[in-house]
Amino acid sequence: MQELIERIRKDGKIKPGNVLKVDSFLNHQIDPKLAYAMAQEIKRLYADETVNKVLTIEASGIGLAVLTGYLFECPVVFAKKSKSSNVSDDLYTAKVHSYTHGTDHTVIVSKSYLNPEDRVLIVDDFLANGAALEGLRSIVEQSGALVVGAAIAVEKAFQPGGARLRAEGMRIESLAKIASMSDDSIVFCEE
Amino acid sequence: MQELIERIRKDGKIKPGNVLKVDSFLNHQIDPKLAYAMAQEIKRLYADETVNKVLTIEASGIGLAVLTGYLFECPVVFAKKSKSSNVSDDLYTAKVHSYTHGTDHTVIVSKSYLNPEDRVLIVDDFLANGAALEGLRSIVEQSGALVVGAAIAVEKAFQPGGARLRAEGMRIESLAKIASMSDDSIVFCEE
Repeated sequence: MQELIERIRKDGKIKPGNVLKVDSFLNHQIDPKLAYAMAQEIKRLYADETVNKVLTIEASGIGLAVLTGYLFECPVVFAKKSKSSNVSDDLYTAKVHSYTHGTDHTVIVSKSYLNPEDRVLIVDDFLANGAALEGLRSIVEQSGALVVGAAIAVEKAFQPGGARLRAEGMRIESLAKIASMSDDSIVFCEE
Repeated sequence: MQELIERIRKDGKIKPGNVLKVDSFLNHQIDPKLAYAMAQEIKRLYADETVNKVLTIEASGIGLAVLTGYLFECPVVFAKKSKSSNVSDDLYTAKVHSYTHGTDHTVIVSKSYLNPEDRVLIVDDFLANGAALEGLRSIVEQSGALVVGAAIAVEKAFQPGGARLRAEGMRIESLAKIASMSDDSIVFCEE
């Protein structure tokens, strides 16, 4: 998506360790007009699919997910991060490893909000190692619902998550796909 | 706002200790159509004011805040909850006490995203004791920006936050204002 790529070139900041900071328009401060355009692009990419639920994970995916759900006219569920290894009969849970922080956390979704008849689009801001997406897929599968696919704002295609999950059959559409990064430049994949 | 009040009557769940669960449409699962209507109502209520930034706190205020920012055509900033008492020259910080969990946490906003010329509308899902709102107000004040007011989805008017902050001069508009709750009923304030 050209508009997002240009914004990353303009306002993204590269930090040591292949960290891309998009805090000024996506993660900490959000540009709602850009986010709406991104949701429209997700709607266009998945126009051939029936989606009746959008699933994301708190916190930074929520804005994009709510706009996406607005366009699909369906509810949006956000998985919560739990400090405890919260196991309860009422919850679907998955363990997600954070490569950035080197920690594990548990994500939870109430069983009330995912049903076997759901066709779920997973929305998130970043895809790198794929841990969050894997956790969300596991939660959808536990519910018996179908993962229609995932829509990601920024994919770091030089990290293994996208390739692995696509090889496992998951449809993933990324609005900006980064082929490589160095300390002072970003190369995007061919569109 | 009648649509929200009716939805709370229909789908809200009252739990012991004056806890109102609105997980099915506001907090864990979000109804984006309702959230959009709520953002429109916030825009109407603050139509007389210039707002050039929306501020909220992660996670459950983000959806409503992004839709509100979309209608005001301005950036949305969400304060992050920090586990550490994160003090840094780059951050505005405030301590927020959670009455629900009996714990304190620190909320942070990067100094890059609030400036003295900003006219800030604070958006959040709940107002009860007012701790979160007070923390966000403190952060705006540290930046030298102006708090235009706050827009709250659900105010528990029988708890002291709203009255205290209004007495201190803060404009607060709540879309649903609960006068009292018992185990099996909710009484809303006169509209």
